Formats: sequence, C-alpha cells, structure tokens
Amino acid sequence: MSFHPPERTLMGPGPSDVNPRITEALARPTIGHLDPEFIRLMDETRDLLQYAFQTENKLTLPISAPGSAGMEACFVNLIEPGDTVIVCQNGVFGGRMKENVERCGATAVMVEDDWGTTIDVDKLASTISENPQAKAIAFVHAETSTGVKSDAKTICRLANQAGMLSIMDTVTGLAGIDVSIDDWGVDAAYSGTQKCLSCVPGISPVTFSQRAQELIQNRSSKVQSWFLDMNLIMGYWGEGTQRAYHHTAPVNAIYALHEALTILQTEGLENSWARHQRNHNALKAGLEAMNLKLIVAENDRLPQLNAVAVPDGIDEAQVRSDLLNQFSLEIGAGLGALAGKVWRIGLMGYSSNPTNVRLCLQAFESALIAQGAKLPLGDAIAAANALYAA
Amino acid sequence: MSFHPPERTLMGPGPSDVNPRITEALARPTIGHLDPEFIRLMDETRDLLQYAFQTENKLTLPISAPGSAGMEACFVNLIEPGDTVIVCQNGVFGGRMKENVERCGATAVMVEDDWGTTIDVDKLASTISENPQAKAIAFVHAETSTGVKSDAKTICRLANQAGMLSIMDTVTGLAGIDVSIDDWGVDAAYSGTQKCLSCVPGISPVTFSQRAQELIQNRSSKVQSWFLDMNLIMGYWGEGTQRAYHHTAPVNAIYALHEALTILQTEGLENSWARHQRNHNALKAGLEAMNLKLIVAENDRLPQLNAVAVPDGIDEAQVRSDLLNQFSLEIGAGLGALAGKVWRIGLMGYSSNPTNVRLCLQAFESALIAQGAKLPLGDAIAAANALYAA
Repeated sequence: MSFHPPERTLMGPGPSDVNPRITEALARPTIGHLDPEFIRLMDETRDLLQYAFQTENKLTLPISAPGSAGMEACFVNLIEPGDTVIVCQNGVFGGRMKENVERCGATAVMVEDDWGTTIDVDKLASTISENPQAKAIAFVHAETSTGVKSDAKTICRLANQAGMLSIMDTVTGLAGIDVSIDDWGVDAAYSGTQKCLSCVPGISPVTFSQRAQELIQNRSSKVQSWFLDMNLIMGYWGEGTQRAYHHTAPVNAIYALHEALTILQTEGLENSWARHQRNHNALKAGLEAMNLKLIVAENDRLPQLNAVAVPDGIDEAQVRSDLLNQFSLEIGAGLGALAGKVWRIGLMGYSSNPTNVRLCLQAFESALIAQGAKLPLGDAIAAANALYAA
Repeated sequence: MSFHPPERTLMGPGPSDVNPRITEALARPTIGHLDPEFIRLMDETRDLLQYAFQTENKLTLPISAPGSAGMEACFVNLIEPGDTVIVCQNGVFGGRMKENVERCGATAVMVEDDWGTTIDVDKLASTISENPQAKAIAFVHAETSTGVKSDAKTICRLANQAGMLSIMDTVTGLAGIDVSIDDWGVDAAYSGTQKCLSCVPGISPVTFSQRAQELIQNRSSKVQSWFLDMNLIMGYWGEGTQRAYHHTAPVNAIYALHEALTILQTEGLENSWARHQRNHNALKAGLEAMNLKLIVAENDRLPQLNAVAVPDGIDEAQVRSDLLNQFSLEIGAGLGALAGKVWRIGLMGYSSNPTNVRLCLQAFESALIAQGAKLPLGDAIAAANALYAA
C-alpha cells in the first residue's frame, strides 16, 4: 500500500521543513545523467554551490550521498595511510572524524573540549606545535549535536601557518551562518542538503581548494573508496560537454538541490543569515520567558540549532513525545554525552520562520505544564513577538 | 532560475522512465528519519525488498547512495586485506569489482570472457580449483554494459561447493528477470533503483545472507568505510522501534523506492519478468526487420537491455543525437570495448511497454534512413505488432 506520511513541522537537527518549491522540483521528469540538459544543470549547480560556499574552487560539487559520505570523501581523498591528522572534538561529529581518520590507516591526535563548548584555539595551537608532522587539522564548524559554532577563521589560519590542510564539517553551517571558504582558506569542506538549505536529505555538497585538488591528483596510493574517488568523480563533474560516466547521478535530487540553491541566491546569503539570527533571538526570548536555558555560551551559539537544557523534574522523552503526538512537531533529542540532558530545536532554512517559533513555544508550554511545571502562561509568545516587533 | 527538464523517453541503460506514481510519492512531505512513521516505512520497505530479491535475509535494505556504493558496501564489508577474490569479468562492471577488491587490500584473480558473451562456468570452475584459498567469487548477473545475463545459479553453486562466498551484481537484473537469492544461495547482492524498478536514481538495494552477516559481525579489522559499515547500519535498519542514528536517511527517496516496490508487488514478479520478455521479443522482431542485429547470443540476452550492433557505414553518435533531438528519446552508447560498436536500448520497468517499443523502432528507422540506409519501410512496426498480436 502506498505510504502517506503525516504532515510534520520539522524543528529537529535536520531534516528541516522542505520548501514546497523544492519538492515540486524534485518530482520533475527524470532525464539521463549524461543528457546535455542535465550537464547544463550540473554546471549551474556547481556555480550556485560556489556562491553558497563563497568560493571559486573549481572542485565544488554535490556528493551523491548524505553528509557522512561527504565527510568520508574529504578524508579518504586527502589522507593516506601513515598520515597524522589533528582532530578537534567537541561533540558527536568530531568523533566521527576520528573514525574516518583511523579507517584511512592514519593516526588521529585529538584535541578535546567539553560538549557544548567551542573549540579552544589555544589548546589547538599547542597541539599543532607538538605535532608538526601532522598533515591536516579537522574540525566541526557547526556542531549539530550541541549547537556550538567554532572559530573556523582562526582554526584555518593556524592550519595554514603550520602548513597543514584544513578539513571542515559545515553540514549545519551552510546558509545558516557565514561560511567563507576562500576568505578563511579552508582546504576541504562538506555540508548537507537537509539543514539550512531546506532540501530533501541525501546529498552532500563538498568543496576542495586548488591545493587539496593537486594533492588528490598526486596521491601515492589509490583512494580506498572507488565510489568517493574524486579523481574519478572529476571526470564526470569536470568541465566541457564530454563527461565520463562514473556512477548514475541522483538526477531528481540534483533538481531539488539546484532549486534550493536558487532560492538561497534569490534571498541572498546575508539575508539568510540575518533571518536565522532573528528567529533564533525570538525563540531564545520565548524560551527564557519559560525559564528554559540554552546550554551554549551566547557568542558560540548557532542560531539554527538551539540546545536547551532539560529542567530538573521534567521527563525529556515525554516532552518530545507530546510535541510529536499533539502538535505533529519534531524536535531532536540529545546525543552522546548530552543524551537525556538537552532538547535540540532546529530553526534551519525554511523552518526558520516566526510561525514555527511560535508553534514551538506554544507546544513546549503545553508539554511542560502537562508535567506540572509552573510557567508564566502566555509570556513566551509575547516575548518572541516583542523581538519581532523590535 | 528554476530548472525545467525536457520530457524524455528513457530507453538507455538507466535511468528508465519513472512511473508518475513514484515521482508523486517522492514529493510527499519530508518527515524525520527517526519518526515512528518512517520506521514503519523502513520495515515495510525491507519486507518488499525481500519479496523482490526472493529472500528471507534479515539484512536486506537500501543503501543511501547509487548502485556503485551498493557494490562497494558488499566488498568493503566482506573482504579484508590479504583476501583473494575470484572476479568474473565480461563487461564494465566486472572491472569495477576488480577495482573494489584491490582497494580493499585484497587480490583479484580474474576470469575474463569476451564482452557480449556470458561467463564461462567451466573456466570459472578451473580457476576455483587453482585458487582454493579464495574467499569469494564476484560476478555480474546482468551486465548493463553488454546486455548479457550470466548463469547465477550455477556460479553460486560452484561457490558454495568450494566454500566460497558469492557476491552478485544484479543492478539491472532485479524485477526484469528472475533473481532468486535464497534458491541460488547468493551471499551478497546489490541492485539499483533506476533500472527495472523504474524509480529515481540514487539508492542501492542490498541483501546479505545469514552467513555473510555473521562474517561481517566477526571481522578482524574494521570496515574501511564508515558510511558503508553494515555493523553500524544494522543499528539503524535493524529490528524494533529503537533505532540508532547512523546517517540521515534519504527520506523522500525511500518513499519513492517503497512506491516502486509496491507497484512491483501488485504486478507480481513473474508478470513483470513476462512483460519484460514480451516487449523484448517485439523490439527484437522490429530491429531484425530493419536488418539490425543483437550482439548477444539468444540464450544469454537480457530482455531489459538490448545491445544492437552498429551497421557498417552508419554514424553511431549521429543516430543517438537524432533520436534525442528529433524524438526526445534517449538510448545508450557502448562502453569500454564496445564503445562505438553498439547502441544499448533499455526496456526496463515502466519503460518496457509497447508504446516505447514502437517509438524506438520508428525513431531508428528515421535516423537510419537519414544516413542513407535502404530499409524495408514500415516493416519494423508491423513485425513488432505481429509479436504483440500473437
């Protein structure tokens, strides 16, 4: 029997609500992955990704799989057996980077910070001095598991000064906050479609600097993944009208990504960032009116992902269950070290709007009152509205 | 600017025409990858895949990436450094298997047959005797590059007798011809969505036998790909309502696959195979009426993929270009050893119907006459119609 999903409001850590323009594009008639019209679409998609990443990197394209495959593409192409990589970890995804480094036959030197705090750049600088042999520094710009933003510009400057590559996870960053690949000097970065691009999940935009591209082209060993070997993928996503078949591109998903990027370009990057910040401010005001606290220090917060501390005496899972069943509203649970301790509220892309902010505040109020919390009724929405009116 | 693809008829080696029911399902509202309703859909999708593969293998699921990632999932999970794998090659995809084996740090012992011929099982049997240390035999059931079907049942029997695993590529086979995983004793198989399932490209159904699953769970080394590590993926696609987050599933693509499999179940496997055979017979009759020849011996032909020899004096690329520009009809070129020598005409899934057969014959007639071929005008369609009337 055909599956008809419920209508949800998606305010978890992704997927976010998909703009209907994007699902409409997704459903357009499939054409061949070597069709001249599809090749034209690929070129436009690369140009739009360059805009989103603020880069002129030629090697900028969507990997035909989710963000974790984008991560793997960066590591397996740049790292060879015997290499050392300095990995900053302050959440789930730094740990996944470590796994990737080790599965490449390389050594990961960890720089660990508490979950919910930003990467300590002084500690990183010391680790760099102690490990001059390291080939790369890997870090998470926007930690989806904690809602923390790290100082990508400084981290990349340290990497460049030490002659090391920088590998950046910005799955949740792209389009929600400033991502300046060229200005920061990032060598490899990957993102996802289902966060602030508000596209369907399944594709991972990546970008490699000229230096990284040359390194990939001059590896001493073959890339361990055939599917993710950029030397082969370049033959398909490269220039000109003749493209070498590598794998069958996910044609309809590329229609959707192209539409998402077109919407972003029309809004403008700066406007998109400002919108994410504005809705975050309103949500924060409303949460604080209910005595709920964000766990991340103000300067390090991602506006698109809000980690909220679960108050004493409140059943964390019951609140999520009430939100889902009574409001058809999805938010995220904590992961790893933060499991059971936080909720994660996403305000990403199309989901980042005043209607969602108000729905979320109303739903939280209801779920908390159901558990006996004594709340200043009505104040949350008023606090959010005051922010919008300002 | 939004991209509006041209309306094509897709009769190449895939993607095939997508059933509109499937694009409609694809565009339904996105829900979370941990939503209870999505988990229910995952369970149903696994059941439907078990039906399509004719297996009771618990470890049957869609990999969140195209067929070449499905191939890689089979190799990186089952093969470890130092292993030997016997690889049968009679087209492009056997060569890709060799690449995968070598990138796992293993040795590939090749059994090579001419492109366009079936795998020689006697030669394979000799190679097995000479290489008793081999861990697995890898082969392509349905060679998309040549239109050849190989004797999967016999190959798997040889593997089982020798105590070796069997790894089967049936990207183009599934739903077009009999694929009997349990009856044949296949240990690992992968397919694609964009062939005889008529779904959008981007997902790869895979299935692993109990023996293969145990081997994966008891590996001595970690799987080199984090993204494709079945030990981790099992935690998400496994049983029960609690699923461990691994990566964000391509939610909408799973809606589409579920719909494609529902359509297949409604039609019935045997009816689907019979339909593919009937349309192949009609196409063949029409092609022969134009003096065009299929390159594969009759018993070894895939009904869903027809490799047609380019006659002397005909410009192969010009014919494809005429078909695309004058009829908006896509067919495939030859690959590798067959580049420039054949056209590949797909009759896969939703594309396998009398209207497409007639369109293709008419378009070929027109393109060949444009190049001065002297053809018995009108006979091709009549020949096809006679087959349908029979």
